[in-house]
Amino acid sequence: MTDLDVAELQRRLAAFAAARDWEQYHTPKNLAAALSVEASELLEIFQWLTPEQSARVMADPGSAHRVSDEIADVLAYLLQLCGVLGVDPLAALAAKMDRNETRFPVERPGNPGDSH
Amino acid sequence: MTDLDVAELQRRLAAFAAARDWEQYHTPKNLAAALSVEASELLEIFQWLTPEQSARVMADPGSAHRVSDEIADVLAYLLQLCGVLGVDPLAALAAKMDRNETRFPVERPGNPGDSH
Amino acid sequence: MTDLDVAELQRRLAAFAAARDWEQYHTPKNLAAALSVEASELLEIFQWLTPEQSARVMADPGSAHRVSDEIADVLAYLLQLCGVLGVDPLAALAAKMDRNETRFPVERPGNPGDSH
Amino acid sequence: MTDLDVAELQRRLAAFAAARDWEQYHTPKNLAAALSVEASELLEIFQWLTPEQSARVMADPGSAHRVSDEIADVLAYLLQLCGVLGVDPLAALAAKMDRNETRFPVERPGNPGDSH
Repeated sequence: MTDLDVAELQRRLAAFAAARDWEQYHTPKNLAAALSVEASELLEIFQWLTPEQSARVMADPGSAHRVSDEIADVLAYLLQLCGVLGVDPLAALAAKMDRNETRFPVERPGNPGDSH
Repeated sequence: MTDLDVAELQRRLAAFAAARDWEQYHTPKNLAAALSVEASELLEIFQWLTPEQSARVMADPGSAHRVSDEIADVLAYLLQLCGVLGVDPLAALAAKMDRNETRFPVERPGNPGDSH
Repeated sequence: MTDLDVAELQRRLAAFAAARDWEQYHTPKNLAAALSVEASELLEIFQWLTPEQSARVMADPGSAHRVSDEIADVLAYLLQLCGVLGVDPLAALAAKMDRNETRFPVERPGNPGDSH
Repeated sequence: MTDLDVAELQRRLAAFAAARDWEQYHTPKNLAAALSVEASELLEIFQWLTPEQSARVMADPGSAHRVSDEIADVLAYLLQLCGVLGVDPLAALAAKMDRNETRFPVERPGNPGDSH
């Protein structure tokens, strides 16, 4: 299903912005600000919840819809930022995980002197 | 290449956290906070730049690496949050775009009375 | 003690920026971004803590210093933003509290039908 | 005027929360999250503006009111966080400025070798 492919979603987002003449607003700086604002709107859903309440947030249909909607907004701005910068987000994450697996080695059982 | 598939990256992130016993910290609330913190670290790169400087940020190898690295962190926490919540981020974005195409219709040329 | 007066701190921040020729960076937009970035650095200290651990954060001298330092950064950018915008932050808060006391009336005991 | 004193505003905020039984939500972690969310709501006003437009934001009464209102919210959560932590925000900022004046010395004219 093409809509569920990252590159296809990026093309659809770019066409959506172009059709509305919104590209003029989409500097990397503005998209990074918008991404940060949307991530905070997602956090707002959780801000007064206990850890236990936060684990049950998808059980209520209204909250579940709001969470999905904010996740969509965060991903939308992340993909648009990657589009204007020419960054492949999946490749960036794979490269970062390669580095993290070296930086944070798994502690071996029986070797209590290890720490991180 | 399996590493560049969203579901595979989610599995790799989950295995990485499980191997380090970090799952206890990964409540939806904490992951939403971490996502917001990483989005701000990405914004920090751009905060004092002019729009024009922000458009050239990938021309400098040091800045380009820092940008890719923060994008990876944002995506990592977004995918981990989706994992614990059971949300498919690509499906959430496709559904949101369906709604946005209705909410923000393209203005027709020759119809200057339209506004949004 | 003059240093502990809001207006005096604003003057000191403005003189500090002017002496370093940093005023050129201090547009309202950039200062709002910097304020948001510093608020996230403060949140970062708490992001993996349980509610109980977060309540004890000042008991550790290292954490206590880090918290105070980030609070200072948030207040610094808030006061600088207010300076360039000509907003009196204490008057803005007093006006907001007047409105909130009307918006969120205290529920009267013995009147269980009240809710908010 | 007592309302425009920081300590008096802190007392008024604490009484407001106590009267509504909201203290249970006001862990340092939750207040730090709420502060970060409010700082993002302030940034949202500026996110698509050019630097020049952002400098004129107070010229429009609607925008000016919205900016003041979000500044009030940021200050409210900052003061409530300081209240539960026992931090004096003005003293924290004065101490930070003392350190910054040492860390970022003003470059002397005629001494082009200085840099920072």
